[in-house]
Amino acid sequence: MKRSDRLVSLTNYFLENPREHTSLPYFSDKYGAAKSSVSEDLDIIDRIMQEEGIGRLQTLPGASGGVSFIPGFSTEKQNKFIDELCTTLQDPSRILPGGYLYMSDILGNPNMVKEIGRILASAFSDLEIDVIMTVATKGIPLAYAAASVLNVPVIIVRRDPRVTEGSSVSINYVSGSSRKIQTMVLPTRSLQDNANVCIIDDFMKAGGTINGMISLLNEFNANVQAIGVLAEADDEEDERVVEDYTSLVKITNVDMKQKTIKVQPGNIAEIS
Amino acid sequence: MKRSDRLVSLTNYFLENPREHTSLPYFSDKYGAAKSSVSEDLDIIDRIMQEEGIGRLQTLPGASGGVSFIPGFSTEKQNKFIDELCTTLQDPSRILPGGYLYMSDILGNPNMVKEIGRILASAFSDLEIDVIMTVATKGIPLAYAAASVLNVPVIIVRRDPRVTEGSSVSINYVSGSSRKIQTMVLPTRSLQDNANVCIIDDFMKAGGTINGMISLLNEFNANVQAIGVLAEADDEEDERVVEDYTSLVKITNVDMKQKTIKVQPGNIAEIS
Repeated sequence: MKRSDRLVSLTNYFLENPREHTSLPYFSDKYGAAKSSVSEDLDIIDRIMQEEGIGRLQTLPGASGGVSFIPGFSTEKQNKFIDELCTTLQDPSRILPGGYLYMSDILGNPNMVKEIGRILASAFSDLEIDVIMTVATKGIPLAYAAASVLNVPVIIVRRDPRVTEGSSVSINYVSGSSRKIQTMVLPTRSLQDNANVCIIDDFMKAGGTINGMISLLNEFNANVQAIGVLAEADDEEDERVVEDYTSLVKITNVDMKQKTIKVQPGNIAEIS
Repeated sequence: MKRSDRLVSLTNYFLENPREHTSLPYFSDKYGAAKSSVSEDLDIIDRIMQEEGIGRLQTLPGASGGVSFIPGFSTEKQNKFIDELCTTLQDPSRILPGGYLYMSDILGNPNMVKEIGRILASAFSDLEIDVIMTVATKGIPLAYAAASVLNVPVIIVRRDPRVTEGSSVSINYVSGSSRKIQTMVLPTRSLQDNANVCIIDDFMKAGGTINGMISLLNEFNANVQAIGVLAEADDEEDERVVEDYTSLVKITNVDMKQKTIKVQPGNIAEIS
């Protein structure tokens, strides 16, 4: 196979298999090309990926050596995306009764979801993460988007047990803002002991739901490595029960009377 | 930019933007390359994509001409994937009380989910589809996987209305197998009139849930263009209330006593 053909095939391979370690001989065999030629291919791909801000190739030398694609998101692309998201969210027609914000169109757009997942995954790129956990329903697409970048499975916590999932562990927790007691369920089979878990959700007010997930994870002796949310509501900051989290945007003010919303970048901008 | 660099950049562009029409001058400008050079690049990419069974580039000539990447799944790859899925599902430890099958590990694996979504999207590739609809919870990842290939948004039907989604339309329907009356809700904002909809779900027994979604879509004057499910249960075939659908696998027999499960390819194998 010629270099030009290999470059198309390899680019596709890496984008399809993020964070997967592949040995150089595998590619030499597959393409019938010398190892040195493959190395040059990889240099080209690495350079373009970095230039376009989509990630980089990580090469490990030696006998057990090989290469893996580490997806990334350049700070520039990230800031631009978050700024646009803030503008989109400030549209007054999003205001719903109770000061909630309509976000289903954003969460229903696969391209937006993919980008949000990538930004969160990039932020947690250096952490040891075995599995991503979310709670039904709205966090699910974001969890899969991040999981597909980190190349780890997703587990979904539900508010009601389902017959199709076998035995489960359930806990009761207090919802942060409404102070109501609620239930959360995770199938026993879905998580191994001592797993390293990243929690992803769409929205955090006081953080009661996420706190519930942490309590549930304690039952599985899991380690919470990271918490990522698309949006946090600023007005509940005093009552917040979750400390260490990463947010893309912060909704600082929803004025029902004036019909205005203020949205600013979340703490991810400070972290990265 | 050199050809080798362009090929990496273009391959990434097409994989990121499926079914998006882009004009050749856009690429000429972006890369500072002659239109003829870009055309040659596209020929290389198209050929390799077809060889690898991941899709093809569709070129439209003329003034309004351009190119779009149509993701595909070769029949060979599809059959191999479905056969492996059948084998995986026949593992007796998947049997749950009531003759249900544990599938959450498969639905929790982003790579599996991506492939299932691709197969369904490829099957519906020639249809006019504006939006994909699913019902919470387990169909959600499959719906997003298919939507990201078809480049359309996802809307999620719920069994309970949420304050964060504004006004909604709800219907009552009869669950096919349990004959219970249930409720389904879709936010008013989420779907425009006369939309072309593809319904995606993980599992279909008699089809009551999918039938409920069809009734709900009638309230929005929507056209159901296609119905795709990961698995159908064969034993309910007599009572089936949905006629026209596409399934990847068919669960033909779950024997609780003998601890055996029989799974065979669904009707997608006959269709394609």
